[in-house]
Parts: sequence; C-alpha cells; structure tokens
Amino acid sequence: MTTVAKEGLQDVIAGHTEICTVYGGDKEKNIPGKLIYRGYDIEDLAQHATFEEVVYLLWHGDLPTRSQLSELEQGLEQSRSLPVEVVDLMRRFPKKATPMDVIRTTVSMLGLFDPEGATDTPEANKNKALRLTAQMPTIVATWHRLRSGQEPVVAKPGQRTAAAFLYMLAGKEAEAVAERTLDVALVLHADHEFNASTFAARVTAATLSDVHSAITSAVGALIGPLHGGANEGVIHMLQEMGSMENVEPYLKKMLGDRSKRVMGFGHRVYKTADPRATQLREMSRQLGEKTGDLKFWEMSRKIEELMMRDKQLNANVDFYSASTYWALGLPTDLFTPIFAVSRIAGWTAHVLEQYSDNRIIRPLAEYVGKRDRKYVPIDKRS
Amino acid sequence: MTTVAKEGLQDVIAGHTEICTVYGGDKEKNIPGKLIYRGYDIEDLAQHATFEEVVYLLWHGDLPTRSQLSELEQGLEQSRSLPVEVVDLMRRFPKKATPMDVIRTTVSMLGLFDPEGATDTPEANKNKALRLTAQMPTIVATWHRLRSGQEPVVAKPGQRTAAAFLYMLAGKEAEAVAERTLDVALVLHADHEFNASTFAARVTAATLSDVHSAITSAVGALIGPLHGGANEGVIHMLQEMGSMENVEPYLKKMLGDRSKRVMGFGHRVYKTADPRATQLREMSRQLGEKTGDLKFWEMSRKIEELMMRDKQLNANVDFYSASTYWALGLPTDLFTPIFAVSRIAGWTAHVLEQYSDNRIIRPLAEYVGKRDRKYVPIDKRS
Repeated sequence: MTTVAKEGLQDVIAGHTEICTVYGGDKEKNIPGKLIYRGYDIEDLAQHATFEEVVYLLWHGDLPTRSQLSELEQGLEQSRSLPVEVVDLMRRFPKKATPMDVIRTTVSMLGLFDPEGATDTPEANKNKALRLTAQMPTIVATWHRLRSGQEPVVAKPGQRTAAAFLYMLAGKEAEAVAERTLDVALVLHADHEFNASTFAARVTAATLSDVHSAITSAVGALIGPLHGGANEGVIHMLQEMGSMENVEPYLKKMLGDRSKRVMGFGHRVYKTADPRATQLREMSRQLGEKTGDLKFWEMSRKIEELMMRDKQLNANVDFYSASTYWALGLPTDLFTPIFAVSRIAGWTAHVLEQYSDNRIIRPLAEYVGKRDRKYVPIDKRS
Repeated sequence: MTTVAKEGLQDVIAGHTEICTVYGGDKEKNIPGKLIYRGYDIEDLAQHATFEEVVYLLWHGDLPTRSQLSELEQGLEQSRSLPVEVVDLMRRFPKKATPMDVIRTTVSMLGLFDPEGATDTPEANKNKALRLTAQMPTIVATWHRLRSGQEPVVAKPGQRTAAAFLYMLAGKEAEAVAERTLDVALVLHADHEFNASTFAARVTAATLSDVHSAITSAVGALIGPLHGGANEGVIHMLQEMGSMENVEPYLKKMLGDRSKRVMGFGHRVYKTADPRATQLREMSRQLGEKTGDLKFWEMSRKIEELMMRDKQLNANVDFYSASTYWALGLPTDLFTPIFAVSRIAGWTAHVLEQYSDNRIIRPLAEYVGKRDRKYVPIDKRS
C-alpha cells in the first residue's frame, strides 16, 4: 500500500528523533510556538546555556557536567584549525566566491584530508562530527579574511565558539556583549527537527554515506533563500527601504507583486510566534539601544506589524537574526554562514542518530508523464 | 492533520514527476519490473538509443530530431573541459583520496568557477545542467590520471560521452564493443525516479539552492553502500570468493552473519527482476565470451541462483554492472563514479523539474525523546 503525501512532504512524519521537537502553536487560542532540544525549552536554554552546553546536549542527550563540558570545549579548541593544505586550496578560490559556496566546497574537501576518512565506526563518526563542528567557524573566518586580502588568525586559547569566531574574523577580541549575543544566537539556531538542510543530511547519511557527504548536503540545502538564505534577504529589504517612511509603501508594492517574497515571515511548522524570533527581537533591541542605532529595529517592528495586519504572518527566526547580526557589525553575506556555524551541531547530531538506526530514505513519485511510447529511428522523428 | 510515514519513507509518494517511473513487478504472477523514461521502456532504449539521446529525452521530454541531437552533442563536447584553475586545485588533492570524494568536492568547486554562478534564471540553470553533465566524465578521468601520476588527456573531436570517457581515462581509443557496452550501461543508469541521490538533489534544490549544491548533495548520497557504492562491493565479494567452488560456502557464511550484507541483491521498489540487471547480465556474458574470461560471470550466475533459492532476492542493477565494468577492465573504485557519469542526466532533469514547480521539502519528525526538563546550573548536575 502506498501513501500519497502532500507536496513538499508537508505534515508528513518522515521518521523519529530524540533530539528536537517543534510545537507549531495554536492560532485560535493564541498559544505561541515552542522549540525543544532534548526536553529543554529553547527559552530556558537561550537564557542560561552556552552554545557548547547545547552542542553537548544535542549530541549526548543530557546537559554536561563540568568535566564533560571542559572535555568538549578542549576537543573543539584542539580541532578548530584547518589542515594547512586546505587553507592553501582556499587561497586559490576566486575572491568573489560566496561564503556559502566556499563552506560547501571546503567541508567536502575536509573529507579528503580527514585523518579517519576511510573509517566509519561510530567512534570515527563522532570524531568527524566534533572536527566539523569545530572547523565550521574557522572556515567562515578564514574565507572572510582571505577574500579581504588578510591572513587568517588563530583563535586565542580558552576562547569558546562565539568568541573564537569573532576573534578569527576581526583579528581582535570582541566586546563581551557581542560575544554573548552571538552565543545566544548560536543556541537558538542549533537545531530545528527535520528542517530542509537536516533532512538533506539525513537522506544522504541514510545511504550509509560518510559524515562529510551528509554535512556537505546540508550546507548546500541551507544556501536556498527558502531556508538559511532568507536572513540575508531581510537586510537587503531593510537597506532598500532605507528609512521608516518607506516601509509601508515598499511593503505594499512587494505584497502586490506575486513574484516577490517578503523574507523572514511565515514558517512551515510555526503557525503562531516563532520562539526564536521572540528571543532575537529582544536581543536586537538591546543591542540597538547600546549602539544608539535603533533604526533597523524600529523599521523591523513596523514591518512585523504590517505583515501581521495584512497577511497574518509571524516573523520567523531569520527576520530578527538579520538585524541582530547587523547590529553586531557582521558582513551581510556571513549571516547564512553563521547559521551554519550553529546548525552544524544539529546536523551532526541528526546524522549520528540516523546511523544508529538506519533505513535508506527512498520515497516514490507519482508519475504524471507520457506512457507507452515506442522508440522511433531518429530520421523518422518529427 | 499529520500523516505518519513508514521509516525511510517507504511506499510514500513524495511528489510527482514526468521524467521516470518504476514498476516493481508482481512476484505472484511472475511479472518482471519495468523502468520507463518519459514513456519509453528501458529495454527499448537500451537496445536502440545512445546515452545522448537519453539525456535529451530526460531533459526535454521527447527523443531528439537529428539537429536537436547534434546541437546537444556539440554542447556537451564544448562544455567537457574543466577550468584550468579547477584542475590545478585537483592536483593538490591527496593522491589516495577516493574518486567519489573527489567528484563531490570538484562538483562543488565548479560552482565557484561557474560563469553563471550568480544567476539562477531557468536558462542559466539549464546551462549549468549541461556543463555538469559534460564535465562529470572529465572529472572522473582527470582524477584517475592525476592520481596515477599521468597528465589529463583531452577527448577527441566528435567523441560522444562513452567514447570520450574511455579515451580520457586510457589516453587511447577503446574498442567499439567497449564503447557501446559503456554507452548502454550509461543508458541503463541514467535515471530511476526518486532514488536516494535524486531525492537528496530535490530536497536541496527545493530550498531554491543552486544546481551545483543540488548535484553535490546527490553525489554525496550516491557514495553510500546502500546506494551507488554497492557495485564496488560486488567485485570485492567476487574477488574474495576467488573461484566457483568457494561461492556456496562463502555465501552461506555471509548469510549466517547478520552484520554482513550481500551486495547487489534486493531493491526497495523492484519486487521481482530489475530490468537493468536483465540487460547487464546479457552484456557481461557477451563481453566475457569475447575476452574468453567467463569466470566472474559464471560465479555471478551461481550467486544469483543461490540468493533466489535461499533468500528469494533478485539481483539488482549493481550486481551485473560490477561484472560488466570488470570485463571492460575498468578500475573497481571507478564503478560508482561511472554511475555518477550516467545519473547526472537524471539528477539534473529532476532538479530542473523541481525548480519549475517548487515547494520546500520539509517533513516532520515523531519526537520520542525526553520531555519537560528544566535547566539546572552546571555544578548541580549529576
């Protein structure tokens, strides 16, 4: 017996997971959405946990003890650098290459140089997950420096992911508020159940292909503007609007043009508030107050209000991650890469979970094409 | 309303396609499986069509007229070479890197150098599909020569895919029978509905990510031993058996060990004969007769007979593609790459079809993990 799914596998439960669950909320009862990692509410984790605690939680199922956490932090620190051959190859990439294309290629290339490349034991796979999670911020920062004509910088001993990333990017220490803001953003983006990039990773892993292949697939899927690529689109929109008085006419024009899409609104799973947007809205306001520049934040609030009024759509995670990263002074085309710096935690957790209880993911298609044709020699075709 | 799918999306119709359909056959009525490209039976195409006609058919929906075919053949020929910068990068890959890891990385890297890299119009996407289909055999042959310490060779004018590939690999023209055998193998492998690698490509493309990302995902998924990687496993098994008298005891031992898997048998969709195996069985016999070496072919027949008797499993495409490529004298670790040289036609057709009527592919997961936990400060964890 076959089951006919809705297009895009909407509302189809494609497998099981112990890692993460999303509650879409209830529009009528006005209950906001919820995001849960291993039983912990994202709000609780965003307020209290570091990204490294969350990485441990996603991989192992429980929050770490102090010694477990320092072991993980040391492991990440020791695995952070890229092989010198890989950096040499990156130097030869065209300077105009987009950071996401570079990440996809470099992750794949790291598979060629991985010390356990030929091994697929559970232990080796965990090591690969650790290495890739540690290397992701380095790939992004290394590429940003190389394309800007600067030499890569090694993070300082003891820096955790957020601080190390900002240091490797700028070559100097960031302010504590910037480090914590990024840390929280990394917590908020670390996993999201069977989102498209995670699902691409699981489809790839389910042929029993290797960890690097699975993560390369995930990076490729994250690029799309219907997924990770959306946060860059939000800033482009804010920049084009330029100021508060243009928000309403610009949006009206956009909503009237069916070929255009307002980035950062609506979600396949959340029917009400995206709990990550709730956290990021507040963080980007606080940052704006600190820097004295609330322009984009106020414009964002207005866009949110109008989108609710005219389209009954809620802002999603991409909408406020955009203005948060903007307030941190990060380059726009690194917004999606930062998503990858975080989501690698979830991707690797899901790939390891897929390996632990695997079935190849191979659906069917409804055939709607031509039937019963017979080959005709080429000179008799019209 | 959510729908709960079987694990691995087995028997779930995940979308529609006009490109290809598979009929699984009927065990009770002893009706073999069927594979149909755009309404044409694979048997008909294997007997009459060239790979390039099939590429045209998969992309455009109809078999080409003579002028359409020569336009495609010229397009492939003109797009076959790799940018010199890409070959220079490949020279720096570790010589022991597996060909499939190199293909995945090089396809991704070609995205950085693509002349229309920043464009995603339907026209640009078709051009990328053409370029990648033309470049795939070149990637494989270039890597094989580089790792063997030989310089890459450019194909001769007028050579079609199969001939060009064998020429670029060996540096000399292959025999006509080898060219036609490979051409038929490419026809047989060109598409297979929503197989795992094609589905990975569609999941990636459905975020509106680019063609290179989608094909990179597909290559990564093809690597797995539950998918394209199986044909190499078949040869390893035949080599370990060594001779006819070892077939039965070896197989018996393997079937008694639940951690082992006999490669090349059974299929998610085909419940009876895989029509591609039927074609390849005959081709590999003919080749064996020509070369006077029927040992592997006869051992294969014996394995097939025993697997049917003891497990009621049919040989699939990987089982006889292995002995066919072996008879052609091709290196074992190029068997899966040759699968990619062919399947790129189907992958690109599916990616273009996905773009033409897109919904993001984002299923749900059943959550089977812990619930309702509260963050506890690190020193209070046990």
